[in-house]
Amino acid sequence: MTGNFIDNRFTPPQNILSGDTADIYFHRTLDILKKENLNPVTTMEVFPNGPGVLCGIKEALALLDAVLPKDNREVWAVVEGENVQAKEVVLRITAPCQSFGLYETAYCGMLASQTGWATAARECVEAAGNIPIVSFGARHVHPLVAGRMDYAAVIGGCQGCSSVEGARLSGLQPSGTMPHALIIAMSDTVKATLAFDKHIPADVNRVALVDTFKDEAEESLRVADALGEKLKMVRLDTPVERGRVTAELVKEIRARLDQAGHRHVGVFVTGGISPERIKYFIERGAPVAGFGVGSYISGAHPIDYTADIHMLDGKPVAKRGRIPGITPNPKLKRVI
Amino acid sequence: MTGNFIDNRFTPPQNILSGDTADIYFHRTLDILKKENLNPVTTMEVFPNGPGVLCGIKEALALLDAVLPKDNREVWAVVEGENVQAKEVVLRITAPCQSFGLYETAYCGMLASQTGWATAARECVEAAGNIPIVSFGARHVHPLVAGRMDYAAVIGGCQGCSSVEGARLSGLQPSGTMPHALIIAMSDTVKATLAFDKHIPADVNRVALVDTFKDEAEESLRVADALGEKLKMVRLDTPVERGRVTAELVKEIRARLDQAGHRHVGVFVTGGISPERIKYFIERGAPVAGFGVGSYISGAHPIDYTADIHMLDGKPVAKRGRIPGITPNPKLKRVI
Amino acid sequence: MTGNFIDNRFTPPQNILSGDTADIYFHRTLDILKKENLNPVTTMEVFPNGPGVLCGIKEALALLDAVLPKDNREVWAVVEGENVQAKEVVLRITAPCQSFGLYETAYCGMLASQTGWATAARECVEAAGNIPIVSFGARHVHPLVAGRMDYAAVIGGCQGCSSVEGARLSGLQPSGTMPHALIIAMSDTVKATLAFDKHIPADVNRVALVDTFKDEAEESLRVADALGEKLKMVRLDTPVERGRVTAELVKEIRARLDQAGHRHVGVFVTGGISPERIKYFIERGAPVAGFGVGSYISGAHPIDYTADIHMLDGKPVAKRGRIPGITPNPKLKRVI
Amino acid sequence: MTGNFIDNRFTPPQNILSGDTADIYFHRTLDILKKENLNPVTTMEVFPNGPGVLCGIKEALALLDAVLPKDNREVWAVVEGENVQAKEVVLRITAPCQSFGLYETAYCGMLASQTGWATAARECVEAAGNIPIVSFGARHVHPLVAGRMDYAAVIGGCQGCSSVEGARLSGLQPSGTMPHALIIAMSDTVKATLAFDKHIPADVNRVALVDTFKDEAEESLRVADALGEKLKMVRLDTPVERGRVTAELVKEIRARLDQAGHRHVGVFVTGGISPERIKYFIERGAPVAGFGVGSYISGAHPIDYTADIHMLDGKPVAKRGRIPGITPNPKLKRVI
Amino acid sequence: MTGNFIDNRFTPPQNILSGDTADIYFHRTLDILKKENLNPVTTMEVFPNGPGVLCGIKEALALLDAVLPKDNREVWAVVEGENVQAKEVVLRITAPCQSFGLYETAYCGMLASQTGWATAARECVEAAGNIPIVSFGARHVHPLVAGRMDYAAVIGGCQGCSSVEGARLSGLQPSGTMPHALIIAMSDTVKATLAFDKHIPADVNRVALVDTFKDEAEESLRVADALGEKLKMVRLDTPVERGRVTAELVKEIRARLDQAGHRHVGVFVTGGISPERIKYFIERGAPVAGFGVGSYISGAHPIDYTADIHMLDGKPVAKRGRIPGITPNPKLKRVI
Amino acid sequence: MTGNFIDNRFTPPQNILSGDTADIYFHRTLDILKKENLNPVTTMEVFPNGPGVLCGIKEALALLDAVLPKDNREVWAVVEGENVQAKEVVLRITAPCQSFGLYETAYCGMLASQTGWATAARECVEAAGNIPIVSFGARHVHPLVAGRMDYAAVIGGCQGCSSVEGARLSGLQPSGTMPHALIIAMSDTVKATLAFDKHIPADVNRVALVDTFKDEAEESLRVADALGEKLKMVRLDTPVERGRVTAELVKEIRARLDQAGHRHVGVFVTGGISPERIKYFIERGAPVAGFGVGSYISGAHPIDYTADIHMLDGKPVAKRGRIPGITPNPKLKRVI
Repeated sequence: MTGNFIDNRFTPPQNILSGDTADIYFHRTLDILKKENLNPVTTMEVFPNGPGVLCGIKEALALLDAVLPKDNREVWAVVEGENVQAKEVVLRITAPCQSFGLYETAYCGMLASQTGWATAARECVEAAGNIPIVSFGARHVHPLVAGRMDYAAVIGGCQGCSSVEGARLSGLQPSGTMPHALIIAMSDTVKATLAFDKHIPADVNRVALVDTFKDEAEESLRVADALGEKLKMVRLDTPVERGRVTAELVKEIRARLDQAGHRHVGVFVTGGISPERIKYFIERGAPVAGFGVGSYISGAHPIDYTADIHMLDGKPVAKRGRIPGITPNPKLKRVI
Repeated sequence: MTGNFIDNRFTPPQNILSGDTADIYFHRTLDILKKENLNPVTTMEVFPNGPGVLCGIKEALALLDAVLPKDNREVWAVVEGENVQAKEVVLRITAPCQSFGLYETAYCGMLASQTGWATAARECVEAAGNIPIVSFGARHVHPLVAGRMDYAAVIGGCQGCSSVEGARLSGLQPSGTMPHALIIAMSDTVKATLAFDKHIPADVNRVALVDTFKDEAEESLRVADALGEKLKMVRLDTPVERGRVTAELVKEIRARLDQAGHRHVGVFVTGGISPERIKYFIERGAPVAGFGVGSYISGAHPIDYTADIHMLDGKPVAKRGRIPGITPNPKLKRVI
Repeated sequence: MTGNFIDNRFTPPQNILSGDTADIYFHRTLDILKKENLNPVTTMEVFPNGPGVLCGIKEALALLDAVLPKDNREVWAVVEGENVQAKEVVLRITAPCQSFGLYETAYCGMLASQTGWATAARECVEAAGNIPIVSFGARHVHPLVAGRMDYAAVIGGCQGCSSVEGARLSGLQPSGTMPHALIIAMSDTVKATLAFDKHIPADVNRVALVDTFKDEAEESLRVADALGEKLKMVRLDTPVERGRVTAELVKEIRARLDQAGHRHVGVFVTGGISPERIKYFIERGAPVAGFGVGSYISGAHPIDYTADIHMLDGKPVAKRGRIPGITPNPKLKRVI
Repeated sequence: MTGNFIDNRFTPPQNILSGDTADIYFHRTLDILKKENLNPVTTMEVFPNGPGVLCGIKEALALLDAVLPKDNREVWAVVEGENVQAKEVVLRITAPCQSFGLYETAYCGMLASQTGWATAARECVEAAGNIPIVSFGARHVHPLVAGRMDYAAVIGGCQGCSSVEGARLSGLQPSGTMPHALIIAMSDTVKATLAFDKHIPADVNRVALVDTFKDEAEESLRVADALGEKLKMVRLDTPVERGRVTAELVKEIRARLDQAGHRHVGVFVTGGISPERIKYFIERGAPVAGFGVGSYISGAHPIDYTADIHMLDGKPVAKRGRIPGITPNPKLKRVI
Repeated sequence: MTGNFIDNRFTPPQNILSGDTADIYFHRTLDILKKENLNPVTTMEVFPNGPGVLCGIKEALALLDAVLPKDNREVWAVVEGENVQAKEVVLRITAPCQSFGLYETAYCGMLASQTGWATAARECVEAAGNIPIVSFGARHVHPLVAGRMDYAAVIGGCQGCSSVEGARLSGLQPSGTMPHALIIAMSDTVKATLAFDKHIPADVNRVALVDTFKDEAEESLRVADALGEKLKMVRLDTPVERGRVTAELVKEIRARLDQAGHRHVGVFVTGGISPERIKYFIERGAPVAGFGVGSYISGAHPIDYTADIHMLDGKPVAKRGRIPGITPNPKLKRVI
Repeated sequence: MTGNFIDNRFTPPQNILSGDTADIYFHRTLDILKKENLNPVTTMEVFPNGPGVLCGIKEALALLDAVLPKDNREVWAVVEGENVQAKEVVLRITAPCQSFGLYETAYCGMLASQTGWATAARECVEAAGNIPIVSFGARHVHPLVAGRMDYAAVIGGCQGCSSVEGARLSGLQPSGTMPHALIIAMSDTVKATLAFDKHIPADVNRVALVDTFKDEAEESLRVADALGEKLKMVRLDTPVERGRVTAELVKEIRARLDQAGHRHVGVFVTGGISPERIKYFIERGAPVAGFGVGSYISGAHPIDYTADIHMLDGKPVAKRGRIPGITPNPKLKRVI
């Protein structure tokens, strides 16, 4: 019954399996239960505290698959990427208590952080309509989870992501333009763009960053003239010190590119992009060809999860404030 | 000149060193620079976009120490745990461009996430005055960074943390009470507390969770009567379905414990604790012995960092919006 | 033409008839008019300053019937319990000036206070839809008017009220559950409920108050088990110190009662109930069987009334700011 | 020890003594206790739910003195008119339970309504500084409590009140000016004022109402010219249809009276007066000689009171949410 | 092609033609261009920075007609009184640069101020529906532009205006009532109104100002009785010190005039009239026969205009932030 | 006694003297008074309806001096440029009624508009501290009053103004930089600046506008390199489409100019400048050398004035709402 629900890309590392990342009181609880010789078959239900896009369930299942006893386990889950409600049970585990009690910290954390990122990504994607979104926030999260963040952004609807690890977890090629550092190291935008075009494989899009040294309109025309048909897009990342990217700037560059015969060159926008900013560009009719989103997704607040015991050796139980017994949810499927 | 600034606990793992967690465009930039045979000595300055408690600098230095060439490098940094301002340069790296260009994603991410957590922790600590704070948020972040989060919380002023890895990074013993799961598994709070006391080493504090089955006041008296002098604290974690912990509840339990002769038993409070909630308890005179803080710290928004080139082979440079040349900051020390 | 509009329950007491409760300047005006030998036939119109549920008109008519000369009087009024608008004339009195000038203070006050209470009651009733409301606010008004307040609450739509006098004025049996005092005096909720059941006539509903000593869920199951089919409802009155009654608490107790086979036991909710709180419970789907409302009704702001002279011996007059002559209102009926 | 704390003016009427105004559940509790033969000596503590000016305690003591057994009773109270805090115990009764359980509705109601009125009055008095305030709100409350309202207003600091009963309870002469009705009945303000002066004893102040038919400035000069030295004040009660009384109107009338040699005539202001309106007049330097306050005081929300059992036959008890045993308050005095 | 678009009433005065009212830098620019012998044919586009009612275009065209060379000019414009949007081009001038560069200050200023006034007038007119509006704000602007302001008010929809010059520019007779000064000089409203009726031609409406000395209701009846059928309207201008004109005052005066048989007399309202105040009267059903509006129109913020060069000797140009070349607008007509 | 208070620069034009700019009802009043042979010596007091910087009094006095009879007149006034309060009398005219009644529209309008402009100017000047302000708003007002507006701005504290007429009224040289039009006409900023330097007299400051075609930082260095010591300032007027001028832009240009050895070149800022924007630059430490202010001053709301008759042939009079007789104000001086 399991198997095809388990994804090798999420095999848990050793420090999670050892309980090193767990809360200490789960270690102590395990000690007590062992010494008391208590190991009831326990049904744990897991739900988010707010609505969102479920993400992290694949990684949680990979962990549970590795630790639950093969002969005494049953796991039901909602599918990765589904919209879920506050308090909706998305994961139900039934197995001997001692086998999985240590991992509550881990699977709640996987779900919380990835659901937070996927939900923020979907907000951007929904605001943008047909305009593609790429996740560019790896630099704003700890590198140990940069890949997970980018994976969750793709689950939430992004068309691509910038980190190598995130792209691999998502089964995509990584996406990128060029950094300011390259242009500064080569002292000129046109020179840097030509070098990019010379050395980088042809299947990588040529996207020139046009706000490093000169006014964006002037630089856009310079790189478009220099690369001609090979230029895919110009990227605007105007710093806040220069008033950020405005809808009028996008329109003007579009008009100037068109007047100069560069209709094939798109305008890609980055820098503080959020659903609100996306709506601002769309409402004002700015012809944006794509958005790169950073900290709105990468800095999303986790959507915290709670795990509650609802059955003990087949009998309904619950702590104060919860209702004993199984909580029905037709979206749950048997996965292990 | 280096050495004592480098902390072995933060040795970078292989996927960071390989650039697997980096943005793809840094890989491409490195390719281009190599093919163009360009490797200028570059000075990169790194600053946060908002004020906060600097954290992650140790981990960033451990990474830089591993990748920068021993004979051509100079790194200046502000000390871990300092208060820093928006746009204050906290790290200045001078070395050949090709040696460290790939790691901008990583060191910015280390600083962003950990500065965010440490800053949130300090807000709680400052709100709480003399009352100790323990970081209990491991369950709300991805387990791969649970230890970093708890480490940052301690840098921000927490007296302890619940994850095993976080405590080890901080040089502390992990802190914990008991989970609802233990009490449900043993069907009764008093029974669970007695089992805890029987099996767990005496140097671990006995802290009974008193909101699982019965009213907190009733349960507090039951466990205090059962454990007597050995009980260190009762923990209130009243669920939102029962109105959360109120200042009046703390006062009443304090009064009832005192009337029953249990003056030595403290009242520990958890559940949605934030600086605002901490102030609420303090302003109403609730005699709280300690707070456990979860998602306020673990879900803190990262404080994003920016890295800018300011010198190239000894000459001041900068992109539009920035001022060329070295930015003075007397808090910077030569560390590598 | 009168008679059937006059209700004996509202016969005015002596201190009202004597003018003891009147403003002194009406006594002086009467003196002057007598000494000047002036007694014009005067038409007085009375209107509320805000919209509401008209109440107090029966008591006002009982007073006017007692004081107006039988042979020279005409009174028109809107019916008790009607919705009325700001400035809508609800009472028009035509009689010799000296006969009723002294009672303006009294009839305006009767209308103001009772219209205020009835209006607040109707707001609760409308918010609650099919769920019955009982007026429990007698303790929050002066006992001299507790009965009037409860009467007005019934006029506004309450199904019952707690004061003996209020119920008598309304033609109902008084409603009640049991006070905390009884449970404290008998030291246990189950014991108190069994005593209630033993001594109180069978036609009085058994409603157990379940928040005195133990958690409400635990206590609800104890009393339901003890009284079985005889228990009509449990009443939740959780104090603010315990977070007040929440929608989740109602749902949990409903679920736990159902799981234990006590589907016949309703959940009655009291404590700071207002239209806003009623909507909160309904919007969250809490299965409430009835609400007891106290200070929202009893503390309602009076809806002040104004009395203006509009005709004098058959000629239109009015002070500045008012329009001379009769103000038409088709809802007025001749009642005296 | 009692006696001088008991005020004959507040002797309880029969319907309060009979329990007719009580909540029905207190009647049932008394039945049960009698049938169970339970009559523990009970200590009841009474406190307000918000801060205010304590009022109604005299009436409550008169009731308790009438019902508590002479040989087994002890009552402590705070003094009428004191400022009290939320949750401050203002009354502590110790006596056999059956003797006073029925009266909780009554004494809580007496305190709630009168504390509400007195507190609102004090807000006006404090806003007005040296300018005297008179309570004119009898017409906006039920006549059965008009006297209590006026008494409470005087306890809150008013210099007088308009109802005959309120003045008697307060030991004062009632205060009043003249109603619009008198002027309308006599067709002219000057004529009405001269009639007042002719027929009303000389020790009653002559205060002419000057907004009935003509502009206030014109009418003020007319009555001042007509009465000369005998005119004490003019009263402005401009209706909202004419823009209410403004600070500029008071100043202009003051100036015009002064220019005409009527410096001895004060300007008395009524109509929607509240602390906010009083501050408006004072901040703009309007020379007001007195304010008449109506519905701000008479319509004040009651400050609800709660009564809790804290001792039972000498042993500390309390319901959930309260602390067992006596609550200390140094402001309490033994009064019965 | 021109001619019928040019209106003699707006022939520019000498100080505008001389450039005396221009910004100095246009004088200097003209000097430089002459000395450099540069005089390209230039296309200037002019647009407002916000939406409004276009006004001032006639005056701008009269100026351009006077200065542009007859043999080398082309001017397109939107029609006076049209609704225009922010950034909509309303005027496009093509001519040799030196001929009109000096007048940018003047034509932008003509458009800015008059568009501001016309727009404010239209807001009042739209709020008033069928009730006529007269512009009474001449006294609140500099007399040099009082006529332009009144002209713009008529373009915005006013039925008349009070200044002689404004009426002449608009092709109307000036409108007016009578000032307080006349009534004060003649000591009585009735006397002043009778004098007005005696000396002023019969085709001028008799409108009596009724708030100078007495209450408006009293005075309205006095003048209506005195003038009978000849009285067209009474004007209410109650000062803020008397609470301004209220809807209730209008209704009462309407009712009292009707009761006295003066149904033909309208009620005209002035004093702080704005769209909000107009809506207030209409929503409350006040039967207003006309409004006089002053500073809401006369003090309207100008709607600033910008002039940008878009073509130079036939080639598209533009400064940063603007799009080179002609901006299409189908509402533009060739006018010169 | 007069003479030195009368300023020839403000001699009234014919259309004001003829009453062409007056409200029609003043013409009619004059007719009536003449026909009734009424010409009382009248004292008129004039006051603003809000606080501000008095301006326009010189022009008003020039008008009164021209129309009042030499042998029967007395005028008192507050000095141009004084801070005045709402309702403070700033002008008192005593003369035969017929001589000046026609000019109320004119002198109120002169005062209203100029006081509005001067007050707005002073707000900017006070916000700017030591940084000079120049009035650049001529293009946003009607050219007939552009000079009056600039004169009032100088009275309010501006160091200069751009219109030729405004400068002449103020006794200053006009101030200006260069328009975008000059740069566009010459196709390049450096070329235009060099031409300016070649042709314009040396005593005019060289201020280069640097946002027309290229990024401001790049252009600033180009013009500074080209003009060297002769360049006084660069002017930033970045359009809203490019994010307006930011404090960071000013700082960066300051730094880049300094690094290139152009410390003598100031940074002048224009574009939507208001007191709020000025504070923004100052609070962020932007080294601004001067501000050009346009529509904040030129679009200031007039501060309306009222004229009331207070004496008639030596006797105090006043309309309702005002106090008869002379209103004392020690700041008034006899000027005519």
